[in-house]
Amino acid sequence: MRQRIRYLSSPPSFVSFAAVGGREEGQGPLGPCFDHLDPSDRFGQTSWERAEGEMGRIALNFALKKASLSPQQLSVLFAGDLQNQCVASSGGLYSFGIPYIGLYGACSTCTEGLLSLSVWLSEQADRQDVMGAAVTTSHNCAAERQFRQPIEYGGQRPPSAQWTATAAGAFILGSREGDVRITEVCPGKIVDGEISDATNMGAAMAPAAVDTLLTYMQQSGRAPSSFDAIVTGDLGAVGTSLLQEMLLEEGIDVRQNHLDCGNLLFDSERQDVHSGGSGCGCSASVLATHILPALMRAEMKDVLFLSTGALMSTSSVQQGEHIFGIAPLIRIQRF
Amino acid sequence: MRQRIRYLSSPPSFVSFAAVGGREEGQGPLGPCFDHLDPSDRFGQTSWERAEGEMGRIALNFALKKASLSPQQLSVLFAGDLQNQCVASSGGLYSFGIPYIGLYGACSTCTEGLLSLSVWLSEQADRQDVMGAAVTTSHNCAAERQFRQPIEYGGQRPPSAQWTATAAGAFILGSREGDVRITEVCPGKIVDGEISDATNMGAAMAPAAVDTLLTYMQQSGRAPSSFDAIVTGDLGAVGTSLLQEMLLEEGIDVRQNHLDCGNLLFDSERQDVHSGGSGCGCSASVLATHILPALMRAEMKDVLFLSTGALMSTSSVQQGEHIFGIAPLIRIQRF
Repeated sequence: MRQRIRYLSSPPSFVSFAAVGGREEGQGPLGPCFDHLDPSDRFGQTSWERAEGEMGRIALNFALKKASLSPQQLSVLFAGDLQNQCVASSGGLYSFGIPYIGLYGACSTCTEGLLSLSVWLSEQADRQDVMGAAVTTSHNCAAERQFRQPIEYGGQRPPSAQWTATAAGAFILGSREGDVRITEVCPGKIVDGEISDATNMGAAMAPAAVDTLLTYMQQSGRAPSSFDAIVTGDLGAVGTSLLQEMLLEEGIDVRQNHLDCGNLLFDSERQDVHSGGSGCGCSASVLATHILPALMRAEMKDVLFLSTGALMSTSSVQQGEHIFGIAPLIRIQRF
Repeated sequence: MRQRIRYLSSPPSFVSFAAVGGREEGQGPLGPCFDHLDPSDRFGQTSWERAEGEMGRIALNFALKKASLSPQQLSVLFAGDLQNQCVASSGGLYSFGIPYIGLYGACSTCTEGLLSLSVWLSEQADRQDVMGAAVTTSHNCAAERQFRQPIEYGGQRPPSAQWTATAAGAFILGSREGDVRITEVCPGKIVDGEISDATNMGAAMAPAAVDTLLTYMQQSGRAPSSFDAIVTGDLGAVGTSLLQEMLLEEGIDVRQNHLDCGNLLFDSERQDVHSGGSGCGCSASVLATHILPALMRAEMKDVLFLSTGALMSTSSVQQGEHIFGIAPLIRIQRF
């Protein structure tokens, strides 16, 4: 098998990061760790679609402010979301005037953005000091009416369904040496788990996370226990059991140090989120509110982080196509 | 202004490329230069959406075959399209099993993909010999029914409307030295031309192309006349006049060597394409059938290539939002 892990020649560092959330996110276990919460979910806007764009803008503004940076100091911005043609990202972020690269990786876009940005910065690092940002957003109400029904309809959801997070995460990376760095990246493969039920995305995404983790473990020669945490994106409760089971079948036990962003963002006992959180903003906000702060405080030193995405559209689901999964991975280390 | 042009430390070379088209493309001036044409526009599939994915698959297969390569020899695949959530790319290309990075740049995705792939290969070039691919597709019938009406409806279009190409382009780049290389890249900024008419995308995209070209000329210190051609993506007839006029106002005359893919793909006298071609497959197929062959034959030696994208969705247009433009640029040189 061809080498899929990339060891970055100049691992970029986290310069700053921020997370923005809505009502449900504020009431979750990570609520106090968000930089900004709006319990109305509206963020001052007149449509859910605009609200999502605004969340990305606020998140990047917080990340810039925390590091006393201006947008002109960033040389590139990678961003994406779940709205058709990713209009939340373009509409929300155009006012920064930062050279822009639009991504689509469904709920895996947070890791896809950090992975792409890392390679971008590493390529230039020997010649100059550069910084860039990665931003991802999702909004529950925008996603519900685009993919399912407007929330006013009150459609019932099966227990395997996930709750699209109203959340955004913004990350600024720089080529200058810092404490917490992305040292390795491993792009995801599109994996067909032969699932066509859009209310069971955990099952559609778990095989992709298994593929990436197996490849990573084989090619790096490392054991799961050598990491403080192996953090998957939004597999939720259903996808998490599937992931752990499928990996056990391959002789790999991640149960001791596996965390899933879909399970961390909400308290499934207390909150009506069915199988857990999802959406581009889910893993982004969990990374910014929980994982990176732990790395900054040196409570963790070595983390594998892989967001998971379900590649589908309303048309593809209505036409009975399979929902493909993808799971890009980054290794984040504290030095 | 911050430096936006990136001089790649290890400029990657074009290893292979291919283009696939439908009926209208086959009847256009570049028809004989396509690797594969299907006058039924169906490509053996049961839906237009599947047909688009299949076009991407066929294009990449041709590009692999021409260079006697297997998919396993490619370490990364950048791809994107216009279908909601880019399902044409994921559904059409998953079977190759190549690590995948999904992009969304509307009709600018061809250049966005080549730009991202170039940086990706350059970062790794000093350590190993690597290859990757960039693929983009669009299908007229899939786009019409998603963005406007199903073609059976027979909706009338104003003269400023463009014709989404039924076309795909696939490009394989490698880090090993070759004759035709991408030496510089310049990502696009999101530009708001304050257009909200989805049947006038040329006007929405022209200001973005002007922004990129002005930045490039200023930062590189080069004059337009120093290039054999300055090739824009799908501005079409309306956008081309606007671009040339806006650049003239800034004292830059590109009329001698400016080409536009939207004008090259179809013969607007003979074909009913209104303002010209558009869609992710338009600039991709013109690059593969016309520009790169000219570079290979040494008829051109130095080309600026910038696809243009209109960032919008049906929702954003219905909600009266502006259609933003973006125009990433690559410089292609023959050595």
